[in-house]
Amino acid sequence: MESIGKKAIMYALADGDLEKQIKVSAEEEGFKLIKGKVGSMNTEKIFAAVETAAQREGLICGDRYRDNHALYHAILDAFVGICRGQLGLGDMLRTVGLIFTVVKGPRNVESREDGEWLAVVLYGTIGAPVKGYEHETIGLGLNHL
Amino acid sequence: MESIGKKAIMYALADGDLEKQIKVSAEEEGFKLIKGKVGSMNTEKIFAAVETAAQREGLICGDRYRDNHALYHAILDAFVGICRGQLGLGDMLRTVGLIFTVVKGPRNVESREDGEWLAVVLYGTIGAPVKGYEHETIGLGLNHL
Amino acid sequence: MESIGKKAIMYALADGDLEKQIKVSAEEEGFKLIKGKVGSMNTEKIFAAVETAAQREGLICGDRYRDNHALYHAILDAFVGICRGQLGLGDMLRTVGLIFTVVKGPRNVESREDGEWLAVVLYGTIGAPVKGYEHETIGLGLNHL
Amino acid sequence: MESIGKKAIMYALADGDLEKQIKVSAEEEGFKLIKGKVGSMNTEKIFAAVETAAQREGLICGDRYRDNHALYHAILDAFVGICRGQLGLGDMLRTVGLIFTVVKGPRNVESREDGEWLAVVLYGTIGAPVKGYEHETIGLGLNHL
Amino acid sequence: MESIGKKAIMYALADGDLEKQIKVSAEEEGFKLIKGKVGSMNTEKIFAAVETAAQREGLICGDRYRDNHALYHAILDAFVGICRGQLGLGDMLRTVGLIFTVVKGPRNVESREDGEWLAVVLYGTIGAPVKGYEHETIGLGLNHL
Amino acid sequence: MESIGKKAIMYALADGDLEKQIKVSAEEEGFKLIKGKVGSMNTEKIFAAVETAAQREGLICGDRYRDNHALYHAILDAFVGICRGQLGLGDMLRTVGLIFTVVKGPRNVESREDGEWLAVVLYGTIGAPVKGYEHETIGLGLNHL
Repeated sequence: MESIGKKAIMYALADGDLEKQIKVSAEEEGFKLIKGKVGSMNTEKIFAAVETAAQREGLICGDRYRDNHALYHAILDAFVGICRGQLGLGDMLRTVGLIFTVVKGPRNVESREDGEWLAVVLYGTIGAPVKGYEHETIGLGLNHL
Repeated sequence: MESIGKKAIMYALADGDLEKQIKVSAEEEGFKLIKGKVGSMNTEKIFAAVETAAQREGLICGDRYRDNHALYHAILDAFVGICRGQLGLGDMLRTVGLIFTVVKGPRNVESREDGEWLAVVLYGTIGAPVKGYEHETIGLGLNHL
Repeated sequence: MESIGKKAIMYALADGDLEKQIKVSAEEEGFKLIKGKVGSMNTEKIFAAVETAAQREGLICGDRYRDNHALYHAILDAFVGICRGQLGLGDMLRTVGLIFTVVKGPRNVESREDGEWLAVVLYGTIGAPVKGYEHETIGLGLNHL
Repeated sequence: MESIGKKAIMYALADGDLEKQIKVSAEEEGFKLIKGKVGSMNTEKIFAAVETAAQREGLICGDRYRDNHALYHAILDAFVGICRGQLGLGDMLRTVGLIFTVVKGPRNVESREDGEWLAVVLYGTIGAPVKGYEHETIGLGLNHL
Repeated sequence: MESIGKKAIMYALADGDLEKQIKVSAEEEGFKLIKGKVGSMNTEKIFAAVETAAQREGLICGDRYRDNHALYHAILDAFVGICRGQLGLGDMLRTVGLIFTVVKGPRNVESREDGEWLAVVLYGTIGAPVKGYEHETIGLGLNHL
Repeated sequence: MESIGKKAIMYALADGDLEKQIKVSAEEEGFKLIKGKVGSMNTEKIFAAVETAAQREGLICGDRYRDNHALYHAILDAFVGICRGQLGLGDMLRTVGLIFTVVKGPRNVESREDGEWLAVVLYGTIGAPVKGYEHETIGLGLNHL
């Protein structure tokens, strides 16, 4: 599990001891990881939740637009995976309940000379605004910082 | 890890003992799982590889079009996640190296009354046709059988 | 006119005696048909109108998520046909006035062994929010139940 | 049935006496109608078949680029309806068998002062390259000439 | 600089004397040009600003739907260029500050026999709703009148 | 004309003395500019032409994948602007004749602290594979290096 995307996916899916272990082990290798939750019918809340968390936890430098730009497109790519073709949530009468993770570090542990990258994972459920009328969905966005 | 999508993702990412363990444990719960590899610049080869494996291993019944239809759209949804917005591989001068998994079973172990579903995961790398010039990508498609 | 899609299109376009005749004849062959109207600049109202009518009239079982899932994607496919590429109504300063039909039954009368399918047709006008500044549009979505 | 889109759809779906009757009646109202068939896994063949027929039958003037431009976008809009979101045929391992119609005339018989329009309908089946593994699909494109 | 698209782009990018010179010179060749500004997170405001200006300045005839139709699709095409794939502004937590130009005339000065065309350019910045967190973007839509 | 996108657009549209003047003046401000031509019905040739020129002229470092990644997405964004919604050239029976420019430097001359960016412009004609049956199109992609 040396690559940044796999770390972001595993960290999103894990809980309890495994979750902690993934974090500790990745941090020892020089990665930074954050995790949060967001549920909404409003697309902009997904973007805002991930952006805010990544800035607050220092994964991107809020003072540099290029960091914001890199993160934005990683979120957008992950969001496209969540929507699978037709972008939209509430306007298409569907809602999501998502865990998100953001990981910052090398693309993988053997390619540190290629600089820092960001991986964003959105994982959870998408479906009708009725409890249980939903199925799983995942999206992964990667970008160079 | 009771849901079909999570099983499909974990089975795609795991190897060695963990891979076997995921399969055995899921089969005991009534799921069927397959795993394969496909690398190509031709989109149709991705579709063909997953369809052929799923039919050969009996996850769908080749004699029923509705099963084919369910699988096709699950693959297409996963493929959209891989491409993140603009569908295409070789025509956009990029290539993929993918592991695929297909899981058949209930949406999750508590909702068996909702019938059988299919989950398709494509996980691997996407990038330029130059070794190492690539990053990770994942797509998940779910459909009712 | 033995196929489910053709029945849904013809039922959407017909009125008066022909409309009744299509319904009676299709019901004798084992199809269920409903028809309604919806006009809006809000995409979610199109989805809601079709979903509500199909549940109320018993074309799908409201208690089974898989039925909802099948219907949702049939509506979405029909809606893509209506929008022809760029999804959106009011946000793109356009509005629709639509007749919708939903038909449940075999894909066609000779393939009953392939189980039940849903066909959703949206037919009407799309255009500027100015009376008469509009042209026709149609979308058809099919899915296995 | 006074509108150009409805005429194009009905003419595509009809056969035998009804087909002739639609044509004769529409021609008396000042419309021009053509009908043809095309089946392919190659998207460009769909475009070529409709363009060639419309030029040969004089629905557009081959010497005027603006007529070609109008027709091209009407075909493209109809093709998007056929594909429902993700453009592609053989590259996505699917094929179509289509009837096409092109109608030239006023948007509807009461709005002749708004000049000439084109309606293109593609109607038929889309599915796997296996006989019978397919379902119906329709697309309608309208454009001003 | 004999073509309509180039005139629309140059007029959007120019200011001061050059801007005036482009306008005067193009008008002598029989083109009509307008220019305006619009900034918003709401997509419909972009459409409305361009439509209103083009009608008010007489580039299209507000009484003819076909003129509206031609303009609408030119704006939509330009807007797609601005968004580069995933349509949306505020719902994707981004905003635009745009100059727009609309030019009416022949496709280029040597092809007057091909009738009148419209070119719409949107040029400006797209980015986060934070001052300076943005980069440039351009879109050009052309349509026959 | 202090911003990178405007420089890339102007350099694409200019010829003769103005072209030289734009280049010289931009180089004095610390930008690097290249310009080339590509005409094709094959999408991959557009990508290849721009990638090859940018590497050969040293705008990106061929040894660093992150530079390739930045350029690739800038080309893709520009290509989306060219196609305006439905990606494809020959498969949709259309062809392009394009000038391309790539500019490397600060986003604009006042924001040098935000590091280096790439701007890719594709400008030319898109249309039927018939001489003169075409109209102008432009696309601009920006990315941080």
